[in-house]
Amino acid sequence: MSFDASLLQRLAEVIESRKGGDPGKSYVAKLFAKGEDAILKKIAEEAGETVMAAKDAQHGAKPADEAARLLTGEVADLWFHSLVLLAHHNLGPQDVLAELARREGLSGIDEKASRKAD
Amino acid sequence: MSFDASLLQRLAEVIESRKGGDPGKSYVAKLFAKGEDAILKKIAEEAGETVMAAKDAQHGAKPADEAARLLTGEVADLWFHSLVLLAHHNLGPQDVLAELARREGLSGIDEKASRKAD
Amino acid sequence: MSFDASLLQRLAEVIESRKGGDPGKSYVAKLFAKGEDAILKKIAEEAGETVMAAKDAQHGAKPADEAARLLTGEVADLWFHSLVLLAHHNLGPQDVLAELARREGLSGIDEKASRKAD
Amino acid sequence: MSFDASLLQRLAEVIESRKGGDPGKSYVAKLFAKGEDAILKKIAEEAGETVMAAKDAQHGAKPADEAARLLTGEVADLWFHSLVLLAHHNLGPQDVLAELARREGLSGIDEKASRKAD
Repeated sequence: MSFDASLLQRLAEVIESRKGGDPGKSYVAKLFAKGEDAILKKIAEEAGETVMAAKDAQHGAKPADEAARLLTGEVADLWFHSLVLLAHHNLGPQDVLAELARREGLSGIDEKASRKAD
Repeated sequence: MSFDASLLQRLAEVIESRKGGDPGKSYVAKLFAKGEDAILKKIAEEAGETVMAAKDAQHGAKPADEAARLLTGEVADLWFHSLVLLAHHNLGPQDVLAELARREGLSGIDEKASRKAD
Repeated sequence: MSFDASLLQRLAEVIESRKGGDPGKSYVAKLFAKGEDAILKKIAEEAGETVMAAKDAQHGAKPADEAARLLTGEVADLWFHSLVLLAHHNLGPQDVLAELARREGLSGIDEKASRKAD
Repeated sequence: MSFDASLLQRLAEVIESRKGGDPGKSYVAKLFAKGEDAILKKIAEEAGETVMAAKDAQHGAKPADEAARLLTGEVADLWFHSLVLLAHHNLGPQDVLAELARREGLSGIDEKASRKAD
């Protein structure tokens, strides 16, 4: 597997290994211990922070390099917590990638999305 | 590159190719034509739908297979629109993966996240 | 009752009267007909738009008067759809106001919120 | 003024009085001290929690009375933080109520919203 795909898979494995772990030693173990609603709050929060970082970049409020770095970091947070949510449901990045591949295979990801939007 | 990583990269290339495209023929071209705020609304909306699908799964309101399929689809929507947002800022999945790898490399993704949470 | 409080109550009554109404003639009747998830999507969407309008105002991207007007409009959308959600659960603005009054009465709304935040 | 409208106004006045206050003594003063982005994060978070509480009520996961109480509390949190955001922009509940009244006065709040939705 490539470096990149193995990274998502490796993260998923680290996350999986935190189930039942010591909440005092691991952020992910703490999220699992708090229960799913704590994970869902983070999804809502990180989506909000992604929107905010994008608006900062849009308005040129910060140097372009820093704005891009901050936006990248928020999307990374959003994807990371998505992986935690997937793990809670015994799903993983491979399921999401398979779904994206399925849509692409059906008729082109964009045309598929287009039909859905109508 | 692996199938999976090349998928994210391939999606990013399809999305990139839609910039300036015919809004009547492509959902992504339409999003780009509407401007960044239309993309950001989708991020907020898809995050909300991810939370809703997770709650449906949590409460067993639907057969487990269907609930998992619906949740996977919402996370796929969220990641797909994240890619559109990244493309709007001339960023891509490789930037997000590099950031996740950087955090992992620093001290373990989980411990890093843990420090941030304190 | 004052003009203001009677407005919230009047809106709640209009919303209540739309239950079971013709989806082709009323936006609220259409929301009720689609089901609660359609209402919840609007809550997520309007919260996102409120954040976006606030960032526009923060960055001075528009004349201050227009930015304030747009932000006010988004909060109005958010509160309006909150009323629709409350009505779906046979609740109303009086319940939210009573809860806010209860918190204030207990120990001051701010100190109460402060304890919760710790 | 009625009890209810004076409550919103009274809350707005308490919030206004916290500007520049001691962040160690008041939750609202702490939000103001952190800056607008901290307020916006709360808007995103409370909207997410409102959606979650509504799904809990929808699925009957808790006794109806408790589910209604929890949903009411989340909407109260959402409205309260909306008031903090408005105050940050030197706006208040009277502006939101005036906007809702304006829409109602134009052509009926529902028909107005309906036109917007098309």
